[in-house]
Amino acid sequence: MQPHTPAEAIERVSNEIKRMGSTPHLSTGQFRTVIGAVGEEGTLDPQHLASLEGVEKVVPIMKPSKLASREFHEDDTVDTIGGGKSLFGTPSPEVKVGGTHAVSIAGPCAVENEQMLTKIARHVRDAGATVLRGGVYKPRTSPYSFQGHGEPAMKWMRATGDELGMPICVEVMDTRQVELMEKYVDCFQIGARNMQNFDLLREVGKTRKAVLLKRGLAATVKDWLLSAEYVLSQGNRKVILCERGIKTFEDSIRYTLDITSIPVAAQLSHLPLVIDPSHAAGKRDFVGAIALAGMAAGAHGTIIEVHYNPSEAQCDGPQALLPETFKALMGKLKAIAAVTGKEFVEAGELVG
Amino acid sequence: MQPHTPAEAIERVSNEIKRMGSTPHLSTGQFRTVIGAVGEEGTLDPQHLASLEGVEKVVPIMKPSKLASREFHEDDTVDTIGGGKSLFGTPSPEVKVGGTHAVSIAGPCAVENEQMLTKIARHVRDAGATVLRGGVYKPRTSPYSFQGHGEPAMKWMRATGDELGMPICVEVMDTRQVELMEKYVDCFQIGARNMQNFDLLREVGKTRKAVLLKRGLAATVKDWLLSAEYVLSQGNRKVILCERGIKTFEDSIRYTLDITSIPVAAQLSHLPLVIDPSHAAGKRDFVGAIALAGMAAGAHGTIIEVHYNPSEAQCDGPQALLPETFKALMGKLKAIAAVTGKEFVEAGELVG
Amino acid sequence: MQPHTPAEAIERVSNEIKRMGSTPHLSTGQFRTVIGAVGEEGTLDPQHLASLEGVEKVVPIMKPSKLASREFHEDDTVDTIGGGKSLFGTPSPEVKVGGTHAVSIAGPCAVENEQMLTKIARHVRDAGATVLRGGVYKPRTSPYSFQGHGEPAMKWMRATGDELGMPICVEVMDTRQVELMEKYVDCFQIGARNMQNFDLLREVGKTRKAVLLKRGLAATVKDWLLSAEYVLSQGNRKVILCERGIKTFEDSIRYTLDITSIPVAAQLSHLPLVIDPSHAAGKRDFVGAIALAGMAAGAHGTIIEVHYNPSEAQCDGPQALLPETFKALMGKLKAIAAVTGKEFVEAGELVG
Amino acid sequence: MQPHTPAEAIERVSNEIKRMGSTPHLSTGQFRTVIGAVGEEGTLDPQHLASLEGVEKVVPIMKPSKLASREFHEDDTVDTIGGGKSLFGTPSPEVKVGGTHAVSIAGPCAVENEQMLTKIARHVRDAGATVLRGGVYKPRTSPYSFQGHGEPAMKWMRATGDELGMPICVEVMDTRQVELMEKYVDCFQIGARNMQNFDLLREVGKTRKAVLLKRGLAATVKDWLLSAEYVLSQGNRKVILCERGIKTFEDSIRYTLDITSIPVAAQLSHLPLVIDPSHAAGKRDFVGAIALAGMAAGAHGTIIEVHYNPSEAQCDGPQALLPETFKALMGKLKAIAAVTGKEFVEAGELVG
Repeated sequence: MQPHTPAEAIERVSNEIKRMGSTPHLSTGQFRTVIGAVGEEGTLDPQHLASLEGVEKVVPIMKPSKLASREFHEDDTVDTIGGGKSLFGTPSPEVKVGGTHAVSIAGPCAVENEQMLTKIARHVRDAGATVLRGGVYKPRTSPYSFQGHGEPAMKWMRATGDELGMPICVEVMDTRQVELMEKYVDCFQIGARNMQNFDLLREVGKTRKAVLLKRGLAATVKDWLLSAEYVLSQGNRKVILCERGIKTFEDSIRYTLDITSIPVAAQLSHLPLVIDPSHAAGKRDFVGAIALAGMAAGAHGTIIEVHYNPSEAQCDGPQALLPETFKALMGKLKAIAAVTGKEFVEAGELVG
Repeated sequence: MQPHTPAEAIERVSNEIKRMGSTPHLSTGQFRTVIGAVGEEGTLDPQHLASLEGVEKVVPIMKPSKLASREFHEDDTVDTIGGGKSLFGTPSPEVKVGGTHAVSIAGPCAVENEQMLTKIARHVRDAGATVLRGGVYKPRTSPYSFQGHGEPAMKWMRATGDELGMPICVEVMDTRQVELMEKYVDCFQIGARNMQNFDLLREVGKTRKAVLLKRGLAATVKDWLLSAEYVLSQGNRKVILCERGIKTFEDSIRYTLDITSIPVAAQLSHLPLVIDPSHAAGKRDFVGAIALAGMAAGAHGTIIEVHYNPSEAQCDGPQALLPETFKALMGKLKAIAAVTGKEFVEAGELVG
Repeated sequence: MQPHTPAEAIERVSNEIKRMGSTPHLSTGQFRTVIGAVGEEGTLDPQHLASLEGVEKVVPIMKPSKLASREFHEDDTVDTIGGGKSLFGTPSPEVKVGGTHAVSIAGPCAVENEQMLTKIARHVRDAGATVLRGGVYKPRTSPYSFQGHGEPAMKWMRATGDELGMPICVEVMDTRQVELMEKYVDCFQIGARNMQNFDLLREVGKTRKAVLLKRGLAATVKDWLLSAEYVLSQGNRKVILCERGIKTFEDSIRYTLDITSIPVAAQLSHLPLVIDPSHAAGKRDFVGAIALAGMAAGAHGTIIEVHYNPSEAQCDGPQALLPETFKALMGKLKAIAAVTGKEFVEAGELVG
Repeated sequence: MQPHTPAEAIERVSNEIKRMGSTPHLSTGQFRTVIGAVGEEGTLDPQHLASLEGVEKVVPIMKPSKLASREFHEDDTVDTIGGGKSLFGTPSPEVKVGGTHAVSIAGPCAVENEQMLTKIARHVRDAGATVLRGGVYKPRTSPYSFQGHGEPAMKWMRATGDELGMPICVEVMDTRQVELMEKYVDCFQIGARNMQNFDLLREVGKTRKAVLLKRGLAATVKDWLLSAEYVLSQGNRKVILCERGIKTFEDSIRYTLDITSIPVAAQLSHLPLVIDPSHAAGKRDFVGAIALAGMAAGAHGTIIEVHYNPSEAQCDGPQALLPETFKALMGKLKAIAAVTGKEFVEAGELVG
C-alpha cells in the first residue's frame, strides 16, 4: 500500500481479497502496510487489486503457470516424437526427448524439392540425427521472399521420413493448417513469431502430436511457459521448449541465444528443452560454438539446419551447416552430453 | 569481401550479381575489395551472396519495403475509417487519419456487456473521441485469464457505434475470424503479438477495411513496415501504424514507448501513425504523459482505454483512464496537435 | 519461502530479520509461507536473506534511494545553475530548473576554438538558451578519435559565458579533473558511460556546483536515482537528471530516448529532469521531434547541440542543429511547455 | 546518397573523400548512387561524411579497432598473469591464458578480512584455481552498501597470493588508485560499469600488468574491442576480455550471459576471453550451467566467486559457490575444455 493510506482503504483491499476466496495477511510498518494474500492459483486477479485505492504495487509470488511447473510435476518429463503408423501406413519410430535423453533434429530450412530433401535427410541421419526437420510454409519478414511449397512438400517430408525411419517435424503457421498437417507430421513446430498466437497454440493443443515451441524474440521465460500452458491445458502434454535467441542491442550476430534460459527453465519447469543454434547465429561460423554451449548448459538436444549446397538454398543458406561439418559437430555434442549426464538417442525405436 | 580474397572468388560474386539482373561495381583498396550491386528491389538475394566464398559482409542499401515507403509515395497518406452502410443498415460516418488529420480512438479494453459499452462509448464521444474501440477476442498471456465474449460482443460494438455515429475498431486474432468480423467492423486491429502472423496479415489485406497495425514488442521499424507491406501487397491500402511500446531492460513500466519510432517511421513511410499509451504504460498514472509525448513527436492520434469503474474491469483495469481524466487529456492533446500542425477530427463525416 | 519449507528454516529467517532490527510478519498458505519484513531502509540485507535455507525469493518493497525520493522530499526541487562570481571576477547569473522552471542548455558538442564557441554561444543565447554547454574532454568510443582541448577550452567557455551572461556546463570524465574544473564551471556534466563511476560521483558530490547526471545506456530509472544518491549523500543537493536514450534492439536510430522514464522518475523523485535529444537521435532530422516529446512528457528543459557548420564539426556534426533550426524549435518548445504548466527561464538572473 | 541527389552534391562528397586521403568509387543505379571510399583506417571521418548534403547513410566496412583485431595479429595471443617478484620479494608464478591455455580465477567477491581470505584461497587452489581474485574497492549500485576495505585488503591479497603461489587479480575503480595498486597486483580488473571509463583504461594501459576487461552491460562486442584498444594503444598488450552478461528484457536472471559473444569476439580478435558466470547468474544455482556453456563456446577460462559461508558474505553472497560445489564444477570444466581443445593450467610456473 502507499504510505499513509487510510485504514478504510486497507480494509477495502482486505475485503476484496477475502471476496476472491483468499486470506489477507497484514504487515504494518512505520511508513506503510504490506498486505499478503495467500490462496489457490488463479483465484486472485492482481490487476483488479492494483486498481484499488491506496494500492502501490501488487507483487505476485505464486507462479502463473501450473501444468508446466515443477511444483505440479517434479520429475523431468520425457516426451516422444513419432510412433504409430504414418499416413502412408509405414510404422513410425518413436524418439525420446527429456530427462537423460537428448535428441538431434536436423534437415534443410525449407523443403525445395524431393531430391534435395532425400539427399540432406540421408546426410543428417548418417551423422546421427534421429528426427527430420524441413519447412513447408515459411514465415518470411518480407512478403516478396520465398514462402514455401505447402502440401506437396509435406508429402515429400512424410515419404522421406518413412523411408529413413525418422519422425518428421514441420512448422505450422496458421490455425487453418492444423487439420491437414496433423495427418502428415509427428511434431508441430511453433515459430518464435507465433509463440503468442494463442488460437494456434490451442489448436495444436487439441492434437496429440508433439509440439516444439520456440521462444518468442521478446518473451521472458515466464511468458514462454505460459504459452506452453496454452497447449498443455488442451490436454496435449507433449510440449518441447526450444530456445532460439532473443532480441538484444548486440548487432554482430542475428539473435542472442539466451543460454541462461536453459537452467532457469529447468528450475521452473519439467518440460524438455532443445536449442536452435542455426537461427540464433544466422551465420554458419557461429552455429557450432552455440550448439556446444547449449548442450553444456543442460539442453536436451539441438535442431540444426543442414544443406549440401548452401549457396543455392532458397532460404537461410548462410546459416546451414555442410553435412561434414554437422557430422563433426555431432561428435562433440555427444562428448558434451556425456559431461551433463545425457545421451543422444541413436535411432528411433519402432513401437508401432 | 574478406582481405586477400583471390580474384576468381571476386569474379564469381560479380557474375552471381549479374545473373540476378543487377550490375556489380568494384572498389579495390589496399586490403580489401568492396563490390556494390545496384538494381531493382527484390531481385538480389543478400543471403545467397553472403554464402559465397570470400564474402565477408553483405550490406543492403536499398529499402526492402516498397508500397509502404516514401520513395514510392512521397506525400502523407490520409486513410479513412468507416464509411458506407453498416451491417444493420445504418450509414457509418467516415473518419480521416493521416496528414494533418489526427484521430482519437477510445473505449474499453474488453467489451464486458452492452450496458458498460454504451456507457463508456458515450463518455468517450462526449470527450472528443471519434472512433470506438473494444476487444471481443482477447489475447491473454495466460490461458486462465478472461478471453473475451466473441460474436455477441461484436454485435454490441456495431449497435453502439451505429447509435453514436462512431466507426468501430476491433482486434482480430485468427485468420478464421476475418470473414465474420469483416461484416461487423470498420477497422481491424492487429495486436503486437500478431504483427508477424503473416497469414493473418494477408487475410486482412484481402478486405477493404482499415487495418490498425500495432508494432511488435521486438520489431524494428523496418520489420514493422515489412508487415505493413504484407497488407498493402494484397491491395488494401488503408494501413494505420500503431506504436505501443517495445521490450527493453527497464522494469519500472510495462513497455518502453519508442517515441523515436515516430519521426523514423515518418521519414521512411507515408502511412499514418497513432500511439497506444495505455498498453505501454500499464498504469493509468503514466498514460497522459506518454500520450502527450507521442502527439508532440508527430503522431496522427491516439488509441486510449477508458473505463468508468476500472477496479471492476475484466481486463487491464489499472491502465484504463477515468472518463473525466480522458476528457481533460483530450484538451491537452488538441493543444499539442496545434503545435505540430495537426487537428483532431471533431466527428465522423457521413459519406455513405 | 519455498513450498514445504520446514518450520525451523522459517524460524531462522524470522530471527535473522529480527537480528537486523526489523519485524517479521508471517502469512501461511496452503502451499507456502510468505514472510514480510518491515523496518528502516537499509537495515535489511536482501542478499543475505536470499541466501538462507528455504528462501525462494526476496521482494524489496521499500525504495532503495532515500534523499532522491519523493517520500523524503515531497515537493519538486528547484535547482540553480550558476550564481556567485566567476573565476574571472564576473558575476554569474543564476538559472533555475525544476518545478515550473524549464531550462534550455545549448552549445557545441566539443569546444574547437574560441571563435567558433563565441559564434555558437551568441546564436543559442539569441534563440533563448540560458546555459552554455561545450565539451573540453570528450569521451570517445575509439582511442583514435578527437579527445578535446582540455583546460584552454575551459577558459574559453568561462570567458564566453561571462561575456554573454550564461552559466556554463562542462562534462567531467575523471576524478583528477574535478578540482581544476570546479574553479571554472557552474555545472558538471556526468556522461552516460560514467553514470556508475562511483568515485567520480562522490567527488562532484563534495563540490557545491550543479551536477547534470545523464542516465546510463543500460541503467534502470532506479539505478539512475541510486547514482543521484551518491552525489546527494555527499551533501550536494543540486542534481539535475538527464535522459539521453537507452540501448535497445532498434537500429534505425542511435539510442531510444525513453520518454516513459520522465513520468516514472517524476513519480519516484523530486529532482528536476531535462532531456538530451541530440545524443539519442544521432541525426539532426530527429532532434526536434524528440525534444518536443520530452517536454510534452513533463521534462524541465533540454540540452541540445548546435553548430553553424556541422559538416566541419570535430565531433558529432550530424546531430548538431543549425542555429535557425534551433531558434524555430525553441518557439515550439515554449508552446509545449505552456501546455504542461512550465515556463522556460528567459535569462539568468544576476544574484551574485 | 539519397535518391535524386544532384551531381554537384555527389562530386562534393567525392572531393571530401579525396581530401581525407582515400579514393572514392561510384556505383550509379537507377534510383541512387552509392559511393565507396577505400583507404587507411582512421583517416576517414564517417560523421563528417554523414553530415554532407545528399548523404543518406554512411556504412563503415573497415573495422575500427586495429591492435585488437585478427587482421593485424592473426594468431591467438597468449597472455600471462603474474611473473617477476612481488612487492614482498616473493617470486610470483606466471600463469598463461589464451590459445590452448585456460585459466581458473577464483576467490571471494570482497576481501572481508585476512582469515576468510586465506581460507577461501586454500579452498580454490585445492580445487584447481591458479589465480586468486578478491575485491578491495567495491562498485556498489547504492552508496549505502559496503564499499570495500581498500589498501589493507590489498596487502592481505598480496600476502595470501605469495603464500599460496597464486598471482592476484583485483578490481581498480579510479585513476587515482592505479599507481598504488600497480605495486600490489598482478592483474587489474576493469568492471563492467567502467568499460568506457576511458581515462582509467589509459592509466592501466601505461602499466605492464595484465588487464581483465569486463564487457559493459550495454556494450556491443565492437565497443568492447575499442575499449581494449584504449589499453593496447598505450603499449600494454596483456588484455584479457571477460564476458559477464548484458542487460536484456529477461528478468528471471540478473544478466543474460551473451554466449554468442565468445565466437564473435574470437573471429574479430586474437585476445583471450574468459567468462564470469557468477555476476551474470546472481544466484548460485545457475553458475555451473553458465560456466560450462561458456567453456563449450570456446572461452579461455572462468572467474568464479567462492565463499565457505555465503550467508555471511558482505557482498553478493547468493551467487558465491560453496568450495565443494566449485571443486566438482572444476572437474566438469576440464572435461569440457578437452572437447574444445583447451587445457586448464594446473599451477603457476615460477619464472621470476
